[in-house]
Amino acid sequence: MGPVAEISQPERVAIIGAGVIGAAWAARWILCGSDALVYDPGPETERIVTEVAENARHSWERMGLAPVREGSLTITKSIEEATDEVSLIQESVPESVNLKKQVLEQIEKSAPESALIASSTSGLLPSELQEEMRCPERFLVGHPFNPVYLLPMVEVVGGKRTSADSVSSAIQLYETAGMKPLEVRVEIDAFIADRLLEAVWREALWLVNDGVATTEEIDDAIRFGFGLRWAQMGLFENYRIAGGEGGMKHFIQQFGPSLDWPWSKLTNTPDLSDQLVERISSQSDRQSGHLTVRELERIRDNNLVDILLALEGNSWGAGETVSGLRDKLRGSAIPQEK
Amino acid sequence: MGPVAEISQPERVAIIGAGVIGAAWAARWILCGSDALVYDPGPETERIVTEVAENARHSWERMGLAPVREGSLTITKSIEEATDEVSLIQESVPESVNLKKQVLEQIEKSAPESALIASSTSGLLPSELQEEMRCPERFLVGHPFNPVYLLPMVEVVGGKRTSADSVSSAIQLYETAGMKPLEVRVEIDAFIADRLLEAVWREALWLVNDGVATTEEIDDAIRFGFGLRWAQMGLFENYRIAGGEGGMKHFIQQFGPSLDWPWSKLTNTPDLSDQLVERISSQSDRQSGHLTVRELERIRDNNLVDILLALEGNSWGAGETVSGLRDKLRGSAIPQEK
Repeated sequence: MGPVAEISQPERVAIIGAGVIGAAWAARWILCGSDALVYDPGPETERIVTEVAENARHSWERMGLAPVREGSLTITKSIEEATDEVSLIQESVPESVNLKKQVLEQIEKSAPESALIASSTSGLLPSELQEEMRCPERFLVGHPFNPVYLLPMVEVVGGKRTSADSVSSAIQLYETAGMKPLEVRVEIDAFIADRLLEAVWREALWLVNDGVATTEEIDDAIRFGFGLRWAQMGLFENYRIAGGEGGMKHFIQQFGPSLDWPWSKLTNTPDLSDQLVERISSQSDRQSGHLTVRELERIRDNNLVDILLALEGNSWGAGETVSGLRDKLRGSAIPQEK
Repeated sequence: MGPVAEISQPERVAIIGAGVIGAAWAARWILCGSDALVYDPGPETERIVTEVAENARHSWERMGLAPVREGSLTITKSIEEATDEVSLIQESVPESVNLKKQVLEQIEKSAPESALIASSTSGLLPSELQEEMRCPERFLVGHPFNPVYLLPMVEVVGGKRTSADSVSSAIQLYETAGMKPLEVRVEIDAFIADRLLEAVWREALWLVNDGVATTEEIDDAIRFGFGLRWAQMGLFENYRIAGGEGGMKHFIQQFGPSLDWPWSKLTNTPDLSDQLVERISSQSDRQSGHLTVRELERIRDNNLVDILLALEGNSWGAGETVSGLRDKLRGSAIPQEK
């Protein structure tokens, strides 16, 4: 591939592997107006793809995102047919290195030379997957999150032999699908998001294993509490606020030492050196130093309120707690008026 | 304390320690109509409490939660004054066992005999904190989440000497404040939510330490991706959906083995015995077996859509990505109409 000019919305994309992830990729692309050519050897492909597209359409309608012209959705009979004249090939077959390598080999046989090839793997290294490819420079990982037609995040990870142009093209292509690509600059197993998810998952398994909490109690601990914060600000930004006017440095100084307490099952921690503390607080300053803690608090609270109202509208989770409070406050009007 | 009848909204509560957490407790109680008596030896107490209450009022107005009659907010000069005729005393002083024990000793000197005493500690064990108390049976942990006036979660944890009545009363009291109490049945360090938070925090520190990602990239990986899921369903329920029609058992069988891959820095994992797999899937069935995966998907997607719209209304995070997509789809109408 030569140097890349501005990338426009792809006319045709190939979706190889159509489980939950592949089918949802197809749905996102057709709703954005691209044609999707899908290949999966499974007997249920048509049903799965159709059902997922239906869910996606329902959601986009609810968001008021009416596609100007929905792209066509074609279930093909081979990888060769699916990759015909496409500019992006998204591989989403099961997480097996060997299977993925075989599929990539087949993709390369028929893919147009100019097409990017991306894998949806949630943790396998692109350097390994591209080892035997003929044109490894156009291969990378584009790791999305379920449901792909709604969550904007896609981690873009190049391997040792991926060209910088391919990474940049992939980012632009995914942006045309209304996504938020995050370039993972250092190639590590499980990338960024799944390392965080896995850490929580392990700890949660211990809690269930040890009989401390049930799956429902753990889910409740998340969705009535910090999960509401994370939908909008993530980890560090919330802790920046928790540090109050002292900011991130104050927070780490307060909270950091407790990391060495024998709390969680997994207790290996990085040394909180001055250098690491400095790195975290200066990164946090670059991220949101333009806002005061008061301003951040107000933004957080406004977002929380609107998320709670959204959930209340659906009579779900923390929204139901708000409903209960609303009823209570209304109800308590009666004795007051006596 | 005798057996507990139905608990009604407390007329007066004492807030001992008025940092971010204590001040927000006071705000929640006064907005619910209870009077709050606050004590903190710091010079800035009045300012902090007033500012936090102002933030809380703003949020409740935005939620359309108008208090029928706002409770009074009194900054007192001593613990004795603050605990006068209250039915709940909420201790929120810094996380030091010795400091908390000293404060609890003082609280016991003046607290009405019928009052419950709760600590906001995010990880210290109630059994340890109550060791030297005269009436340990009425002491427990009520661990809230920042911002306390918006997040419904409060973990209720009794110690070895806490009476069952006290736990039950605390749950009912917190419910009168519009909260979602979660009884932590097994007393462990850091309870439930903070063990999960700490696991993520450690992994995130490694990512920053190793130069893999910045604080902003980590926050983005969360808030544009799985954070949006967690605001409404937590961990297991989302994985139940990911398991598709095969459910939770299928998910664990697929995802479980990768826990033994050397992905995250902290690799000690519980043995995925048949017994543990069975426990998780049967708990998950009890939690949401009354809904099909299709129904769960639809609920999840409707919630996600409304959370995304809420964030779009505030021009924030993943909501901005949706705005961009909306503009793009509108813009692309022009060439189509030519």
